[in-house]
Amino acid sequence: MRNLLFTISFCGTAYHGWQVQNNAVTVQQTVQDAIEKIIRKRENIVGCSRTDAGVHANMYCFNMKTESLIPCEKLVTAINAMLPDDISVLDCVEKEESFHARYDCKRKEYKYLILNSKINNPFLTDRALLYPYPLDESFLDEQAKQFIGRYDYSAFCNSGSSVEDTVRNVFSADVGREGDTVTFTVSADGFLYNMVRIMVGTLLDISSGKIPENTIKDIILSKNRDMAGCTAPACGLYLNKVEY
Amino acid sequence: MRNLLFTISFCGTAYHGWQVQNNAVTVQQTVQDAIEKIIRKRENIVGCSRTDAGVHANMYCFNMKTESLIPCEKLVTAINAMLPDDISVLDCVEKEESFHARYDCKRKEYKYLILNSKINNPFLTDRALLYPYPLDESFLDEQAKQFIGRYDYSAFCNSGSSVEDTVRNVFSADVGREGDTVTFTVSADGFLYNMVRIMVGTLLDISSGKIPENTIKDIILSKNRDMAGCTAPACGLYLNKVEY
Repeated sequence: MRNLLFTISFCGTAYHGWQVQNNAVTVQQTVQDAIEKIIRKRENIVGCSRTDAGVHANMYCFNMKTESLIPCEKLVTAINAMLPDDISVLDCVEKEESFHARYDCKRKEYKYLILNSKINNPFLTDRALLYPYPLDESFLDEQAKQFIGRYDYSAFCNSGSSVEDTVRNVFSADVGREGDTVTFTVSADGFLYNMVRIMVGTLLDISSGKIPENTIKDIILSKNRDMAGCTAPACGLYLNKVEY
Repeated sequence: MRNLLFTISFCGTAYHGWQVQNNAVTVQQTVQDAIEKIIRKRENIVGCSRTDAGVHANMYCFNMKTESLIPCEKLVTAINAMLPDDISVLDCVEKEESFHARYDCKRKEYKYLILNSKINNPFLTDRALLYPYPLDESFLDEQAKQFIGRYDYSAFCNSGSSVEDTVRNVFSADVGREGDTVTFTVSADGFLYNMVRIMVGTLLDISSGKIPENTIKDIILSKNRDMAGCTAPACGLYLNKVEY
């Protein structure tokens, strides 16, 4: 039995997230359908994380155990030919039998794109949050640095998750600007349900004065979801890197 | 009677080009519909050029004569509220009564995006040409320089145009690369029907060896469409700048 690690990229606008659901098109189901057409067998695939509806991935990983003997490179080409244009397989490598795309992940990086403009950019529709009020990226970068460290991140987790261990190690958190696009980049050993979107919502609430500055550490330590900011929309969020 | 110059941006994927047509959704019609909802009158608008189905615009200009007294800034906000997410009004200014968006245009710049990769980028679907064979951008930049000058560009014009004067002055032509995206940028005092797409097709045919190198000047002077290369797909083309 081979254990294959696939790296894919997808524009999530048309999908109800990664995970297979009844009555909704998901990335996992679409990928499984494409693979089935090639290897003539329905295989279950294991993703590196759930993603919300409308969230994108520059890089996403999953593994699949299979009896198929088709070489990795041929699988990439063949599966891409079966996938719609908003999902691409970038890579496929063979891993040891015990490898698990979720449990073995050491580090993930997310990006959140904010179009800081009064006027929408037609090319960023569904791909960034349109935010028309001033944003000071240096100030927000300073604030974001307070996310770094190993903490119980319950205050940055929406209900709906069954996770018991809510401690996560945030390695880096940065805010930068290129033209009118402001980007929040965060890496950690793992993320709770909606964690990045609540981080972004909190930074925006600090920017607007709704939440006082220099309170992120207090919010984390409170472990109280009500202390943190709103949940920023899914459309600006990109899973950007997955490391094993 | 006021004469207003509007600058817009649009993602052209969903449209059959600029120009109003029967039985097809176009950018002009969509914009006229939005304006009608605001000024309560159907006004004809005059675009700076026709564009093909699927072509995009980072910048596109049109003018409109109107009795409406709504200030320019308010028009921008109000019309944007009526437009779909793939078209945005960026600016509106008042011009002299004789101003004409097409005839008064001094210079236009187009960009053509090529994703030079074997694997599609889901975020560039319908926004770039996927080209899987090697491209040497320095070599193509040298070749592209031969487009510069004032010539009869009939060899780079598909049939279907009623234009009689086929002389155009090409000011600049450059090929560059950023990662796996190769961009052809060209500016001129005007362009013939499909001219940029045939320029790109010719460069790609030179790259693949189908057309010999250093023959662009000969092709121009031949005034023979059959000498030039294929017409590259519309999806990679962006009107990028319009100058008056």
